[in-house]
Amino acid sequence: MDKIVRVDMTQKEIKVQALPPVYEGLGGRALTSKVVCEELSPSCHPLGRRNKIVVATGLFAGTPLTCSGRLSIGAKSPLTGGIKESNVGGTAGTKLARIGIKAIIIEGKPQDDTLYFLKLDKNNCELIPVAEYYKAGNYQLAKQLRKIYGEQIGVMSIGPAGELELAAAGIAVTSVEGSPSSYAARGGLGAVLGSKKIKAIIIDDAGSKIEAQFHDKKEFIRISKEFSRKLIEAKRVLTKYGTAIEICENNLLGCLPTRNYRTGAFEGAERIGGEAMNDLLKRRRGKSGVACMPGCVIRCSNIYNDENYQYLTSALEYETIVMLGSNLGIDDLDAIAEMDRLCDDFGLDTIEVGGAIGVAMEAGLLDFGDAKAAIELLKEIPKGSPLGRILGNGVEITGKVFGVRRIPSVKGQGMAGYDPRAMKGVGVTYMSSPMGADHTAACVIPGRTGFDPNKKYNVLKPDGQAQLSLEVQIIVAVLDAMGLCFFVGPNIETLNTLVSLHRAKYGSEITFEDLVSLGKEILKGEREFNCGAGIAPVHHLPDFFEEEPLPPHNSIFDVSYQEVADKFLSIV
Amino acid sequence: MDKIVRVDMTQKEIKVQALPPVYEGLGGRALTSKVVCEELSPSCHPLGRRNKIVVATGLFAGTPLTCSGRLSIGAKSPLTGGIKESNVGGTAGTKLARIGIKAIIIEGKPQDDTLYFLKLDKNNCELIPVAEYYKAGNYQLAKQLRKIYGEQIGVMSIGPAGELELAAAGIAVTSVEGSPSSYAARGGLGAVLGSKKIKAIIIDDAGSKIEAQFHDKKEFIRISKEFSRKLIEAKRVLTKYGTAIEICENNLLGCLPTRNYRTGAFEGAERIGGEAMNDLLKRRRGKSGVACMPGCVIRCSNIYNDENYQYLTSALEYETIVMLGSNLGIDDLDAIAEMDRLCDDFGLDTIEVGGAIGVAMEAGLLDFGDAKAAIELLKEIPKGSPLGRILGNGVEITGKVFGVRRIPSVKGQGMAGYDPRAMKGVGVTYMSSPMGADHTAACVIPGRTGFDPNKKYNVLKPDGQAQLSLEVQIIVAVLDAMGLCFFVGPNIETLNTLVSLHRAKYGSEITFEDLVSLGKEILKGEREFNCGAGIAPVHHLPDFFEEEPLPPHNSIFDVSYQEVADKFLSIV
Repeated sequence: MDKIVRVDMTQKEIKVQALPPVYEGLGGRALTSKVVCEELSPSCHPLGRRNKIVVATGLFAGTPLTCSGRLSIGAKSPLTGGIKESNVGGTAGTKLARIGIKAIIIEGKPQDDTLYFLKLDKNNCELIPVAEYYKAGNYQLAKQLRKIYGEQIGVMSIGPAGELELAAAGIAVTSVEGSPSSYAARGGLGAVLGSKKIKAIIIDDAGSKIEAQFHDKKEFIRISKEFSRKLIEAKRVLTKYGTAIEICENNLLGCLPTRNYRTGAFEGAERIGGEAMNDLLKRRRGKSGVACMPGCVIRCSNIYNDENYQYLTSALEYETIVMLGSNLGIDDLDAIAEMDRLCDDFGLDTIEVGGAIGVAMEAGLLDFGDAKAAIELLKEIPKGSPLGRILGNGVEITGKVFGVRRIPSVKGQGMAGYDPRAMKGVGVTYMSSPMGADHTAACVIPGRTGFDPNKKYNVLKPDGQAQLSLEVQIIVAVLDAMGLCFFVGPNIETLNTLVSLHRAKYGSEITFEDLVSLGKEILKGEREFNCGAGIAPVHHLPDFFEEEPLPPHNSIFDVSYQEVADKFLSIV
Repeated sequence: MDKIVRVDMTQKEIKVQALPPVYEGLGGRALTSKVVCEELSPSCHPLGRRNKIVVATGLFAGTPLTCSGRLSIGAKSPLTGGIKESNVGGTAGTKLARIGIKAIIIEGKPQDDTLYFLKLDKNNCELIPVAEYYKAGNYQLAKQLRKIYGEQIGVMSIGPAGELELAAAGIAVTSVEGSPSSYAARGGLGAVLGSKKIKAIIIDDAGSKIEAQFHDKKEFIRISKEFSRKLIEAKRVLTKYGTAIEICENNLLGCLPTRNYRTGAFEGAERIGGEAMNDLLKRRRGKSGVACMPGCVIRCSNIYNDENYQYLTSALEYETIVMLGSNLGIDDLDAIAEMDRLCDDFGLDTIEVGGAIGVAMEAGLLDFGDAKAAIELLKEIPKGSPLGRILGNGVEITGKVFGVRRIPSVKGQGMAGYDPRAMKGVGVTYMSSPMGADHTAACVIPGRTGFDPNKKYNVLKPDGQAQLSLEVQIIVAVLDAMGLCFFVGPNIETLNTLVSLHRAKYGSEITFEDLVSLGKEILKGEREFNCGAGIAPVHHLPDFFEEEPLPPHNSIFDVSYQEVADKFLSIV
């Protein structure tokens, strides 16, 4: 039986229930967004009593299917004011499945400032008042919790940023090797967990005997194996270099955010790219090809050591390197890795913070390229000073406070590492996703095809990008519901595989069309929630993207607002 | 001939044109909102090249009609991100009419930081580079400009807050006695003027012989006189005590914002109310019954002297006293007057700043009731420090940066001096006005009747408030278009008088229904602009108004969102 753990932080009560019928058959984002839409008033304050934080595993969590252990975390976002689903790897999803928990819903709000651990194991769910660890960094916390509860636990936790309820605060999830380096980073969900006074969720699957049930186990394993085999083949480059391999590619494409989106190419790109990092990892006895989730065959993560061969940070990834690197005019991997470590420890979204520091550079608070000043500025955040709180509340607040004209955000959320002028489908995603400027909603990079695998698109041209982004958003919503990492490929081949896997696991008669309908339903529900929160479905990009030609292609963002609005409003 | 002055700040060029046909017959807010809708992209950055600031006189400016010299200033607001019309008395409207200028449109953006004066007189319109006065306060500036250009000028100017482009910056307009105390305060239009690098607009009507033209002058004068006579009779209390007379009334009604909207009654209300102030004005040899506009018979303004009988500030009004007084738990009129003086001098909206300090008190930065700390905090704003910039960007930004749950704002704009839980029609206005939480859009206080003068409403009950606020918003939009102060009374009697006046002045066949249609058209156009800017037409109030009962009536805000949305979306 799938269990749902309902934690009332006003009364400090936990109820373990069977999944209510209204949520049956749903997983991941389909479930988190459904709970948010069903149980929340869109007008509730994101940090108030009436917001809820919802954690849900995907439909294949706990099975041997590779890349299926992603966890969805949903709430009303303090960053966007709208609905949020932030999606994370690491060990928590699998461990929750192993103790039979489908979802956690944390609601209410304590009257006092005591922090709690929420500890879940095969027998118990309990709230443990935290005696120490106030304002503790995620690294120290994860280490101590493993000492106390054993190496087998998975931890979801917040750092000082979450305790300060800053809108750029994320939720760290421990990876296979135990560091708090997987991140439900976007949308400020760490602040929501902080507002509920939960410092960490500890998932202990020791001794659990729950195993996944299958309608046709043999068939499921057969499809899974075939799926893994293809992925291993297709993702060799990603396994070797990690996502950082995209840096030089996107630099050549001219869409690499550089100095707060002033140019799309960075002269220091090669020094921070995948090849350079791979060389460094080898010299420093770091690791590439690391899996963040158990059983992942893509293994795009890594372990980054400092010059003394000591662990510094892990999963130095594309978005982090771009937003804290080229976006700040910084070409020093060690400086970027240090900032990544600080963000992971403080509990901050590297994309949002990188964007905010870029905007602060634009405002003249520090110079582009000044890594030392950027690190100092970042250290201001956990202090809770006015300046620290400004930055910790993200790109848009920072830009507004300092009167910056060039603020790369949509719906309150900072953009990721793709300049929409030279990767126009991503621009459409930024305009139209219920999540705000979130590349994970549909990262329309070259080669994406949506529903028609034979269709060709030019990332520099507006033609067809509105439809393409919509299709990829639908497919990604399905992957998010299934708990699959989108690196498996948001395409119809994956969707067809999911149909077969769903049938094998659940004995369902589900079809491709059913999955597409599911994706549309998710987007539609999220859009309606946002409307109730006063947020229009489709936004223009900030006007400098329509006005300033982006070197080297000197392209502007020219996908028609009306076309995007029409496409996205047509989902019924 | 009505002239329109178009100032291109990119090229530093001024064109004086006849009013284009598309704008003919429009005045005040009808004209500013039309220009904003016609000429601006809703996606433009409020502080960027593509925003425009539009100044327009009403349809009766320059005539002897009392209270008809209000000036509308429109733009895309840096505070709300939507359309704004901010409405101001003082001398500028009449003086513009006297030199034949119907409207000023300031567009483009200079490449450098040089500030300019825009000087307009009967023969010339010129841009004068400013040699000094950078960061000068409005008081010093107004004084110096009168020395240089003569006592007869009218001045519209920005203080340091506008130069810093802070979203709480307003535009000061000199009053009859020459002080910069009339304010187009709301929506951050001072920041827009600052972004255009205009420090002041100087209107010199010396020697102008332009007189208002009439279809039937005798009839116009007759109606005007009758209108004045009735107003003098009806507004005796306002003339004697100023708008501060409402403080004790609203305290009794239980809707007086106190300590960041925690209660609706303030134990110090009598010490800051109209009677107390009137006594003080007498003792200090100040003045009450002062007209801010030439020819005003209501004369609700005043001159407030310090304990040494020296001028301290003028027009210490209801909103200022509430938002910097009871809202902060401060019951000391001298402290409130000092803050008002500082706001006028720095160029800040007292409502927005009072709200922001209230939220800072809520966040624990200073204590409620601590006037000294509040004054010090206010002085932080023109310094441009991170803390100063936070506050100077208004209530909502301050609340978000400091993680405050109780933020009294809608569409980015701080609420005025009426708690919506105990004055529910004003709450509807906050929810639905295209301007954000702006009481001037429809201040639905007791006695307002909308289109049916016999209908009775209870401010504590939700019944009929949605319809009432809509009707008053329509009437107010008409008054704003005509350039009339809303203290003449936003009711159908006034509208009928305006029909007669319009016919007498223009020889039109205009009807009551035409005026209602005009009001609806204004609201509809503004709403459409906001939609393009990603702002939903109707917002919920912040959730604490729906959750926390407000003492002394312990009422919550319970007007149905759906009812409000349905009513307001039905305007076609």
